[in-house]
Amino acid sequence: MGRAHSNAWLQAPHFFDLPRTPVLKVACGRHEASLKEFAQKWGWEETETDWKKLVTRPDIDIIDIALPQHLHYEIAIAAAKAGKHIFCEKPLAMNSQQAEEMLRVCEDNKVTHYLNHNYRRVPAIAFAKKLIKEGQLGRIFHWRGAYQQDWIVDPEFPLTWQLRKETAQAGPQWDLNSHSLDLAQYLVGDIKSVSCLTTNFIKERPLADETTSGNLSAEAKTGETGEVTVEDAALMLVEFENGAIGSFEATRFATGRKNHNTFEIYGSKGSLTFDLENMNELLFYSNSDPAGLQGFRKILTTDALHPYVQNWWPAGHIIGYEHTFVHAVVDFIKAIAENKTVEPNFHDGLKIIKVLEAGLQSAATGQKIILKNN
Amino acid sequence: MGRAHSNAWLQAPHFFDLPRTPVLKVACGRHEASLKEFAQKWGWEETETDWKKLVTRPDIDIIDIALPQHLHYEIAIAAAKAGKHIFCEKPLAMNSQQAEEMLRVCEDNKVTHYLNHNYRRVPAIAFAKKLIKEGQLGRIFHWRGAYQQDWIVDPEFPLTWQLRKETAQAGPQWDLNSHSLDLAQYLVGDIKSVSCLTTNFIKERPLADETTSGNLSAEAKTGETGEVTVEDAALMLVEFENGAIGSFEATRFATGRKNHNTFEIYGSKGSLTFDLENMNELLFYSNSDPAGLQGFRKILTTDALHPYVQNWWPAGHIIGYEHTFVHAVVDFIKAIAENKTVEPNFHDGLKIIKVLEAGLQSAATGQKIILKNN
Amino acid sequence: MGRAHSNAWLQAPHFFDLPRTPVLKVACGRHEASLKEFAQKWGWEETETDWKKLVTRPDIDIIDIALPQHLHYEIAIAAAKAGKHIFCEKPLAMNSQQAEEMLRVCEDNKVTHYLNHNYRRVPAIAFAKKLIKEGQLGRIFHWRGAYQQDWIVDPEFPLTWQLRKETAQAGPQWDLNSHSLDLAQYLVGDIKSVSCLTTNFIKERPLADETTSGNLSAEAKTGETGEVTVEDAALMLVEFENGAIGSFEATRFATGRKNHNTFEIYGSKGSLTFDLENMNELLFYSNSDPAGLQGFRKILTTDALHPYVQNWWPAGHIIGYEHTFVHAVVDFIKAIAENKTVEPNFHDGLKIIKVLEAGLQSAATGQKIILKNN
Amino acid sequence: MGRAHSNAWLQAPHFFDLPRTPVLKVACGRHEASLKEFAQKWGWEETETDWKKLVTRPDIDIIDIALPQHLHYEIAIAAAKAGKHIFCEKPLAMNSQQAEEMLRVCEDNKVTHYLNHNYRRVPAIAFAKKLIKEGQLGRIFHWRGAYQQDWIVDPEFPLTWQLRKETAQAGPQWDLNSHSLDLAQYLVGDIKSVSCLTTNFIKERPLADETTSGNLSAEAKTGETGEVTVEDAALMLVEFENGAIGSFEATRFATGRKNHNTFEIYGSKGSLTFDLENMNELLFYSNSDPAGLQGFRKILTTDALHPYVQNWWPAGHIIGYEHTFVHAVVDFIKAIAENKTVEPNFHDGLKIIKVLEAGLQSAATGQKIILKNN
Repeated sequence: MGRAHSNAWLQAPHFFDLPRTPVLKVACGRHEASLKEFAQKWGWEETETDWKKLVTRPDIDIIDIALPQHLHYEIAIAAAKAGKHIFCEKPLAMNSQQAEEMLRVCEDNKVTHYLNHNYRRVPAIAFAKKLIKEGQLGRIFHWRGAYQQDWIVDPEFPLTWQLRKETAQAGPQWDLNSHSLDLAQYLVGDIKSVSCLTTNFIKERPLADETTSGNLSAEAKTGETGEVTVEDAALMLVEFENGAIGSFEATRFATGRKNHNTFEIYGSKGSLTFDLENMNELLFYSNSDPAGLQGFRKILTTDALHPYVQNWWPAGHIIGYEHTFVHAVVDFIKAIAENKTVEPNFHDGLKIIKVLEAGLQSAATGQKIILKNN
Repeated sequence: MGRAHSNAWLQAPHFFDLPRTPVLKVACGRHEASLKEFAQKWGWEETETDWKKLVTRPDIDIIDIALPQHLHYEIAIAAAKAGKHIFCEKPLAMNSQQAEEMLRVCEDNKVTHYLNHNYRRVPAIAFAKKLIKEGQLGRIFHWRGAYQQDWIVDPEFPLTWQLRKETAQAGPQWDLNSHSLDLAQYLVGDIKSVSCLTTNFIKERPLADETTSGNLSAEAKTGETGEVTVEDAALMLVEFENGAIGSFEATRFATGRKNHNTFEIYGSKGSLTFDLENMNELLFYSNSDPAGLQGFRKILTTDALHPYVQNWWPAGHIIGYEHTFVHAVVDFIKAIAENKTVEPNFHDGLKIIKVLEAGLQSAATGQKIILKNN
Repeated sequence: MGRAHSNAWLQAPHFFDLPRTPVLKVACGRHEASLKEFAQKWGWEETETDWKKLVTRPDIDIIDIALPQHLHYEIAIAAAKAGKHIFCEKPLAMNSQQAEEMLRVCEDNKVTHYLNHNYRRVPAIAFAKKLIKEGQLGRIFHWRGAYQQDWIVDPEFPLTWQLRKETAQAGPQWDLNSHSLDLAQYLVGDIKSVSCLTTNFIKERPLADETTSGNLSAEAKTGETGEVTVEDAALMLVEFENGAIGSFEATRFATGRKNHNTFEIYGSKGSLTFDLENMNELLFYSNSDPAGLQGFRKILTTDALHPYVQNWWPAGHIIGYEHTFVHAVVDFIKAIAENKTVEPNFHDGLKIIKVLEAGLQSAATGQKIILKNN
Repeated sequence: MGRAHSNAWLQAPHFFDLPRTPVLKVACGRHEASLKEFAQKWGWEETETDWKKLVTRPDIDIIDIALPQHLHYEIAIAAAKAGKHIFCEKPLAMNSQQAEEMLRVCEDNKVTHYLNHNYRRVPAIAFAKKLIKEGQLGRIFHWRGAYQQDWIVDPEFPLTWQLRKETAQAGPQWDLNSHSLDLAQYLVGDIKSVSCLTTNFIKERPLADETTSGNLSAEAKTGETGEVTVEDAALMLVEFENGAIGSFEATRFATGRKNHNTFEIYGSKGSLTFDLENMNELLFYSNSDPAGLQGFRKILTTDALHPYVQNWWPAGHIIGYEHTFVHAVVDFIKAIAENKTVEPNFHDGLKIIKVLEAGLQSAATGQKIILKNN
């Protein structure tokens, strides 16, 4: 994540005209040696191991929080109170109480807050939003999403921080469904009820070596095992406020799926499908096409008129994963310069966490949960 | 359906060696004129408009019920009591009480009963079953199924029998999820709990002209409207007895999807995906492939060693929808000749209806339903 | 082929309204025992091992020639002279002299002649023709076709009749490029020049057992080997009369391709692509779609308004290989009844053979060949 | 191209460990104002409008030639004579005489020369090379390549430098087939004969405004027209030294294709297909897979063990077009540091141009051309 963020700050001014040029001032991390090496590689001017010193420095305008979710709350609150604009990794927080306070403190201190659900800035998805807004799908009936990975199918994969409740709060519900929910809220609308099913396929795993905790390598084991305290898969059925219904499927046990973030949206006039592993394409079906000529058309979203694309390469030359971070930085800097909000932000993040929490509650009780105050 | 069934009885002996040759004895229907024309076209020896006369005839061995579900129960019971073997369209019945009695009477009368969830006999699906049985997928984690159509997206589509509870019992839950459940039970196993969400997108529709009731043509309207009394879409989350979890999505409002019956199955050793609109292909991913060389491979299931295929054409020459009916007839006739059971049968149909009913109960109450006696 | 043809004659009246009903009068073949079994299975009234007796029988209207190409000429000439209508398998003949005479005798005797390049009657291809005729592609620039198979990659595959010049005349040039040329002439237009490259990858093969010559089974070997006297692969570049250019690639050495008959057509207004292994789909790109929304759309050609489809199943229910033979029989019978020509016929076959011959001449000389009198 | 190259020099040290760190010393161009802006954006230390001054500066080690082909020769010769290492855009030169001299002078002066056929460094293609080298395809039978674009289908597109012989030498033969030939030579081997067909679909075009010559914008017109003096499409059939045969199809008139660089390779043991518009995937078919389980498997080449990938993102996170330039810079710098050659280089470029020239000669004469001294 440090690399993806550093890259975004560096690349944004190369490819886009920005109202302000970001300066890579201070890189912050726990391990001084590796931090120094990292900072040098990417051109960070300084390093710091104590974020508290950093967060109040007057020569810092932006705090970029690229850390696991259990570390967001304290830093974001301190940064907002110090008047810093915040670029925060997702999921926003450990629970809705944290998220609410983070949002409130940001608003009280009038800082620009951005939550990095970066997939909104895949050109194909930003273009999907445009099509929906123009009414090309008509009334939306269905959202069918899935975010499937397979990195812990092996039972010898160790008990990293992502698999423990105290550091991750939840499993794919937090990590993956948060992404899908952000897209669903962005493209379809707010959610009013949720039913959820979670399960664990593997309940005990080798302990990860303390010194490499956070390392996903299967080599890091001590011989002992510990309990997996988050779910392995989380499935949700939802009702949207606008009458559409939706399904979500998040799992780390879909053998063969690496970063398979997909959705289908069906409306009265047309439909869309998307797959992140093929992120330069958007499939679009239109009832308005002549009879007999209707079909899902594969739009290669690499034309100059697709969002963000004219700043990259000619048609047919694809972009990749890290470009979404660059787009996020571009929009974030513009928002700061123009004193506007940018989306998604902590408001969106709070709404997402409320649905995620309701989902876990539904899974625990077997009850459909109606969301309040949404 | 009359055509698909007639075709299957005729084609089975052309392409397969059968222990008995079916004779197209009597075609039964309501409208004498069209029935006679139909019988002549397909070579049925006689016609009959009163099924009660037919069902006890001593020169009849098999009753093929190709009718809407509200007409299955009475005919099946009578046929079974008369000692006839039964080839019955799906879904089996209007409710589990009917289904239970149909099963019991068939068993009491020792007749062969077959329920035509024909998609089990798509070569790709029969081959999927073989792979799973051999253990090529290992422990199964996920079933992700969807059966999507779009034939009633137009609000002017009339209120045909499929949209009224008294003739159809339910909408896609009965019509489409029954198919998906049959495949899920066949490929993954029995289901122990279900959560379900249903909705209606269009609540009133033009009345269909009485004389053409059952006709899907949008032309048949009287000017008046009536209430749609079945759901437009039905989504389910399930737990399987073996620890896998699954999702189902059945809808008639997926614009652009015509007969889009798909599933994904993820296991500890491999995965499979299938799409009925491309039914000669099966996608298979194996963890056993060398690292770096892993990927979903598109198996064109047209080789002689894929189930049923050696009786058709050389490799690369695809088959279509009606071939599944031919395969069903082949296996049904063999079962009768060998005095064995054939699957799926009324036992499978009863299990399916129990899940479908639990689904509707869950949708009505917002509660996860635990299945009993399964 | 006997099965595919018998099936077509039987199925045509089941699914289509025909002006005349075909009668399966006499099945003709060399081996009496297997012929009798075959005739019984398919309902042929009689059998005959001497085609000369058959061809002049007054109770026969149609001669269906489903034999290797070296047997077409003599039978077709005799049948035409006896005033029989002819349904002939492709490729038409061994050379253009035979083809010219076959055409002339048919015309002199005013019989209906049909050459079974059945792929014209794939609904997707017939629909492609309609789109091109309507001008949806504008001026055509490119034909890019390939017909790839892999059934003789194994060097132990025996020297069957298809691999010997005296029975086959040529390899994939005759067998596969004839199909592709028929489609190219149908969809793009006549050809005015050809450059060709052929090669042999395997020059000697085990002799097939005499008694099973024509059998593709790798088991049939005598221990001796013989020379492969036809090419293994044939590639062509062509100029069309209308200014388009085209490429053809026919091979039996494309490992993994079973019956991979594909083409791409690019025009000033739009483009089409097709793949026979997925024959219910046609991909269409239109410059007329709004900017940003352009893309290849996958048309599932299973709607009632796609050619031939309304006689089969509802949208989304696919058809297969043998259906193209049924469509051919339907159009052939209609042509006879209406005293019209049907296409493709011996005229088309002659044009195809002239290009194929020019191709072989080009391959032998390294020269581009200009076609005459086309 | 300036952006793609600048980006590569900047990004290489961020993501890869390099033996030397490139310094962006001097940006060279014709228009001082836009050059200065460009240099500032990308961090070039200085600017220069006279390449002759630049090429002999002692503080310069590398000359990166990112210019149209008619400008390569003079600069490369001068740079090599000055002892500079050369990173040169493709196609190498205007003809084989230039190319031969460029190669000779580089060798005489012992400078490292690299020709930027960047697609060799798509991970999927580098991985394809590895598979072929390991023998996973066995003996190769077929190369089937195409490089299709559609940027000049509109007859109003102006007569830019790419469409004039004096600046471009040829059309897609030079621009696109050079890329395909590089891949074919890399993956299959050297070529021994070529037959070629070229054509022009549009013979006159609006003159481009002098001041924006080189600009692809359709707006730049003077009202007058000029002759298109390069071909619009170029098709080739080739024989490889190793007995394989191949086809190439390069065009700017394939409506709907933006940067559609594809190939299929068929061998005795397996096959590969690739499509640049989907460049993170490689399709692989293996005869070694168990019978019934064979199929083209879609390898998502984003695993750490795929070439270059471990330096980017986790599995399933794709990379794009510009990454191939980064890989090229990495390998070029390593070659310089280790005093080794890097491929492709001017030797490869010379071989490519000899085939391209033979192709044009074949197109002009209608004769197959045998290549000498290859």
